[in-house]
Amino acid sequence: MSSILKGNKINVSVFGQSHSEAIGCVIDGLPAGVKLDTLSIEKFMERRAPGRNKYSTTRREADKPVILSGLVDNTTCGAPLAMMIANTNTRSGDYGNIRTLPRPGHSDYAAAVKYNSFNDIAGGGHFSGRLTAPLCFAGSVCMQILKQKGIDIKAHIASVGGVEDEKFDPVNITDENIAEKEFPVINDDAGEKMKAEIEKARLDSDSVGGIIECAVTGVKAGFGEPMFDGIENRLAAAVFGIPAVKGIEFGRGFSSALLRGSENNDEFTVSDGTVRTKTNNHGGILGGITSGMPIVFRVAIKPTPSIGKPQQSVNLVTMEEEELLIKGRHDPCIVPRAVPAVEAVTAVTMLDIIL
Amino acid sequence: MSSILKGNKINVSVFGQSHSEAIGCVIDGLPAGVKLDTLSIEKFMERRAPGRNKYSTTRREADKPVILSGLVDNTTCGAPLAMMIANTNTRSGDYGNIRTLPRPGHSDYAAAVKYNSFNDIAGGGHFSGRLTAPLCFAGSVCMQILKQKGIDIKAHIASVGGVEDEKFDPVNITDENIAEKEFPVINDDAGEKMKAEIEKARLDSDSVGGIIECAVTGVKAGFGEPMFDGIENRLAAAVFGIPAVKGIEFGRGFSSALLRGSENNDEFTVSDGTVRTKTNNHGGILGGITSGMPIVFRVAIKPTPSIGKPQQSVNLVTMEEEELLIKGRHDPCIVPRAVPAVEAVTAVTMLDIIL
Amino acid sequence: MSSILKGNKINVSVFGQSHSEAIGCVIDGLPAGVKLDTLSIEKFMERRAPGRNKYSTTRREADKPVILSGLVDNTTCGAPLAMMIANTNTRSGDYGNIRTLPRPGHSDYAAAVKYNSFNDIAGGGHFSGRLTAPLCFAGSVCMQILKQKGIDIKAHIASVGGVEDEKFDPVNITDENIAEKEFPVINDDAGEKMKAEIEKARLDSDSVGGIIECAVTGVKAGFGEPMFDGIENRLAAAVFGIPAVKGIEFGRGFSSALLRGSENNDEFTVSDGTVRTKTNNHGGILGGITSGMPIVFRVAIKPTPSIGKPQQSVNLVTMEEEELLIKGRHDPCIVPRAVPAVEAVTAVTMLDIIL
Amino acid sequence: MSSILKGNKINVSVFGQSHSEAIGCVIDGLPAGVKLDTLSIEKFMERRAPGRNKYSTTRREADKPVILSGLVDNTTCGAPLAMMIANTNTRSGDYGNIRTLPRPGHSDYAAAVKYNSFNDIAGGGHFSGRLTAPLCFAGSVCMQILKQKGIDIKAHIASVGGVEDEKFDPVNITDENIAEKEFPVINDDAGEKMKAEIEKARLDSDSVGGIIECAVTGVKAGFGEPMFDGIENRLAAAVFGIPAVKGIEFGRGFSSALLRGSENNDEFTVSDGTVRTKTNNHGGILGGITSGMPIVFRVAIKPTPSIGKPQQSVNLVTMEEEELLIKGRHDPCIVPRAVPAVEAVTAVTMLDIIL
Repeated sequence: MSSILKGNKINVSVFGQSHSEAIGCVIDGLPAGVKLDTLSIEKFMERRAPGRNKYSTTRREADKPVILSGLVDNTTCGAPLAMMIANTNTRSGDYGNIRTLPRPGHSDYAAAVKYNSFNDIAGGGHFSGRLTAPLCFAGSVCMQILKQKGIDIKAHIASVGGVEDEKFDPVNITDENIAEKEFPVINDDAGEKMKAEIEKARLDSDSVGGIIECAVTGVKAGFGEPMFDGIENRLAAAVFGIPAVKGIEFGRGFSSALLRGSENNDEFTVSDGTVRTKTNNHGGILGGITSGMPIVFRVAIKPTPSIGKPQQSVNLVTMEEEELLIKGRHDPCIVPRAVPAVEAVTAVTMLDIIL
Repeated sequence: MSSILKGNKINVSVFGQSHSEAIGCVIDGLPAGVKLDTLSIEKFMERRAPGRNKYSTTRREADKPVILSGLVDNTTCGAPLAMMIANTNTRSGDYGNIRTLPRPGHSDYAAAVKYNSFNDIAGGGHFSGRLTAPLCFAGSVCMQILKQKGIDIKAHIASVGGVEDEKFDPVNITDENIAEKEFPVINDDAGEKMKAEIEKARLDSDSVGGIIECAVTGVKAGFGEPMFDGIENRLAAAVFGIPAVKGIEFGRGFSSALLRGSENNDEFTVSDGTVRTKTNNHGGILGGITSGMPIVFRVAIKPTPSIGKPQQSVNLVTMEEEELLIKGRHDPCIVPRAVPAVEAVTAVTMLDIIL
Repeated sequence: MSSILKGNKINVSVFGQSHSEAIGCVIDGLPAGVKLDTLSIEKFMERRAPGRNKYSTTRREADKPVILSGLVDNTTCGAPLAMMIANTNTRSGDYGNIRTLPRPGHSDYAAAVKYNSFNDIAGGGHFSGRLTAPLCFAGSVCMQILKQKGIDIKAHIASVGGVEDEKFDPVNITDENIAEKEFPVINDDAGEKMKAEIEKARLDSDSVGGIIECAVTGVKAGFGEPMFDGIENRLAAAVFGIPAVKGIEFGRGFSSALLRGSENNDEFTVSDGTVRTKTNNHGGILGGITSGMPIVFRVAIKPTPSIGKPQQSVNLVTMEEEELLIKGRHDPCIVPRAVPAVEAVTAVTMLDIIL
Repeated sequence: MSSILKGNKINVSVFGQSHSEAIGCVIDGLPAGVKLDTLSIEKFMERRAPGRNKYSTTRREADKPVILSGLVDNTTCGAPLAMMIANTNTRSGDYGNIRTLPRPGHSDYAAAVKYNSFNDIAGGGHFSGRLTAPLCFAGSVCMQILKQKGIDIKAHIASVGGVEDEKFDPVNITDENIAEKEFPVINDDAGEKMKAEIEKARLDSDSVGGIIECAVTGVKAGFGEPMFDGIENRLAAAVFGIPAVKGIEFGRGFSSALLRGSENNDEFTVSDGTVRTKTNNHGGILGGITSGMPIVFRVAIKPTPSIGKPQQSVNLVTMEEEELLIKGRHDPCIVPRAVPAVEAVTAVTMLDIIL
């Protein structure tokens, strides 16, 4: 395991399994003297929490972060900021057969081989989406520091099951207050259609995937270390730490492959005495370095692998094919809850780069 | 700059600018006792070399690697393997106005801010695609070691300007000998259509982008360290070190966002006494760990930013908009030459993970 | 802050301040399937615990480690092993004037500058010797795994205030069961004299320093990565993480500076079919690589900076000299309690190298 | 191998063997816009060069560094600065029997095990002291940047074979111009006695060791990241990369073990409006953080292992003891030539910390 989101300054060491005593993280390298807005952290984490609505799992979690160290009078003191969330639902018997019957689309089989079957399978163990809770905590802390430096991060659901939201205007991202919304989309009508897709999947005992678009505004030109410590390298490495992420693209990304250079190049102009580009197909990054334009990227989230339909698996003891029926209730779509997770790892990474 | 492709065992420190005395790399951490097949390295590097055909720049390069250290009797001795390629085309006057007039789509402007205009602009400096030559050298060395362990890496042009090649059969990737081809595609007819696209762009003084599909076969289940040192995190971080890469997706990637879980999940089966999946939408990676299925991913390459058409830029001295006309000849499509570069960083990364 | 003991495989992220809610650590990268001997861990940590005798501070600590994650049925599951110890003595008023009046020999002044006076000063904050408790936990876990591989680590007090213990026979370190002793020396008579030195210092409201000798046995030849990832580089970097360490030497160390090459070189011989050296002035490391002989090194520990005598300091507000009288009770000699801490960081480092 | 001196910003990747085509290094992460003083670099490297006098080996080296990349008009451009020195003396037959008959005190045996006898043995291969030449180049470059920031590094021979030089006054290190001296000591009379010791050893076909004292002045308080990224951790890890180093101590180091706390603590005072300590037993570092006082440390160098006397070794093929007689001429004392190497790794490390 290497569950440390590593940076040059800031390292976030994440711990916990779905059903261990606690989950949490240690944030090493935060600057001293930052007063934390606890309410803001709670609101941020609430966006990720399950059970908010019928689109997510009904498992109840208190998800109350307990600060173990690193603060004096709610202000960072330079020492590592450690946080834990006690797990109340521990050691459920719901997961008994996963050990021998790996779930398709989950890490069960790969982890069984890697850890010689000693991995914790209850609730997905360390691979559970629940581990994004401490990430969201860390992200929220970093985001508060970024905001003081004029940097903002926001993300929305770009699509679910083929239903598309509007895109950010990559040249001028205004404050749509998406983070305040119960369902984080720009266009609420599109959001309703997405919800309908999710509900359909749920009724089918199935699930759907989607895409998240994320933008970082307010970053000046000149950050990022090419060739291998550039903004894209760093953000990509961080984002793939979120379960279910299967792709990332910056700016026009894969669709730039369809373009001519004359269409894809962003011409320069001057605005308020600053060099800007007229368009932002490059997603704010040129040669791995920030251009001063908003950083824009999209993240592909696969459909939740836990579905209610029977699936073919292999019994690892008998080595025979066997039908698997996953019990319990699961998110028919994890995309909404993944939105703050994407923002979170982006915040940690960008703060590390900016410092 | 951080031009080191970092691993736990193997680190490749890349150096050079397009017009410096030399470019090259130092490969630290190779196992001792590996006899290198020099011919194989040369053939690999030849695939990346320019001037092979009319689809690439006419600049002539000898690109002859000189080994400086790390070998005894052509066998690795455990000490760092250092290599350089002398630059013969140095300090051309072709690039005089880039300093003040940044090229759209290039790193010129971002680098000027970052390096306070001290960056080497001649030929793109350290950002030049020429820097992939030492990467290809390092990749070729690592690939030889991987092959001895039964691991193979191959890539092809998946699309250029909208023309698509066949896809790899992700469950059973057979040896199509793509690497031997002058134009690396599975379906040569598609290849001809791609060439026609490139030629059209060239005649238009324009350029086109494309997509590269890469596969790694022969990797057993159980490699990769979640959450942040997984296979996807590592490969993504490496691949974005190649100039012009704007996206990466594993397995079904972005298209999995359109699927139901029941469609995207790969059911398990048994084949030759080994657990396999019937399909390979997961691209050989589950929870960041190899599943034993081929690792499959796709990389988006933007159209060459250097085009012959006039473009709008900003004079950084006068801060006025100014028209830029890029002189010299440039690849109308860098996708073919990027294919071995993608294989190369994949080889370095996979060897580091496997060791 | 970078309170992470970093390795290629194992990373220990330490958190906590003397008076924060808790102290603890996250051990990332442990192999799965290791059954932990809890009693052994407790005994190890007990050796570091204060209040065992009159030679150490009378502050009472429960120091009961609570495992938060990483274990299933007391067996490592491959996920990070997180542990915390709740602090019961929190926010004492004893330390009020340290903020303005830094204690000589402590980090107070340097930390005040670094953290802009936001550092936690209570009980020394993150710089407290108390932070070695989680290190001892991590070290004990790693030592159990090392023992299964035939590797043993032991340390003793080599000197206190000029009174010297016998040295390890570096060629053949037998099991003196030092770890079982209440006062960890080879020669108990020397130990009594050391205790007398400590007691004298205590009665003088003063403190004494000392030297710890540590040995690692059972490591085969060939481990260590020169030039900068050798055994000496790694152990030195780890040992200086323990508060009050001011020097480290391997084998004959500083005294080799007095020798001729013919005296200091260790001639080779054969024993039980294995190459050995007749003497071990090299301390088991040649060129940064293990030679198969015991690894032997010595660590200098300065006298406890907290003493009862009045000392001259500077009031950071008025910038005037002012007399400081440190209240509370403190170890007149921390050397005995530092012995397990030296073993602990050695265990973590060696396990990382061996894996 | 990990021959990379790693930092958060600056990484120096060292390559080469004693008899490979070339030795050299790649310095990644230097700030752009630094004009290099080539003459100063040459003078620095000359201090390390062999053959300057009868105290060092008579092997002739041109040691002329060739810059391969990273400079434009002799000014750093932000791209990695690569340098090589061609080896003219390659593949000498002098070292034929080392493969089977390892030299006492050298890495031969440990390396043979580690690299399965594929290591380059000619002239010590990658373990040769010759590898400190590129380190000196890198150190000289970094020192120029440090000097512009008011930071100076100087070192002298503190002792050779028991003959001691004066010590630096650790509170106020004045410019003794040691670096200008052919034999770098403070007290030239002591230097003459040291030379006599070296000459005696040479005539005896033997060698002597010594101690180097190094100081860094001009570093403000507040640098260094505790617990494991402190100044002592970093400098120790770097210094042990120099062949023959067997110990390091900061401030009073091992002798502080003999002191009472009241003697070892450095009381604070005010000087020119700045907090200073009256004495500097702490060597400029408290809690891993700079205190604003000079950083002072001492490094133990073992006697050159290559001596002309016959020594007992083991034939690795027959596994029988066999007498070894080392041919060729070697430094009877490498301490003088190690002085700039200690300064060099200190410079690289401090620049990384300061940036």
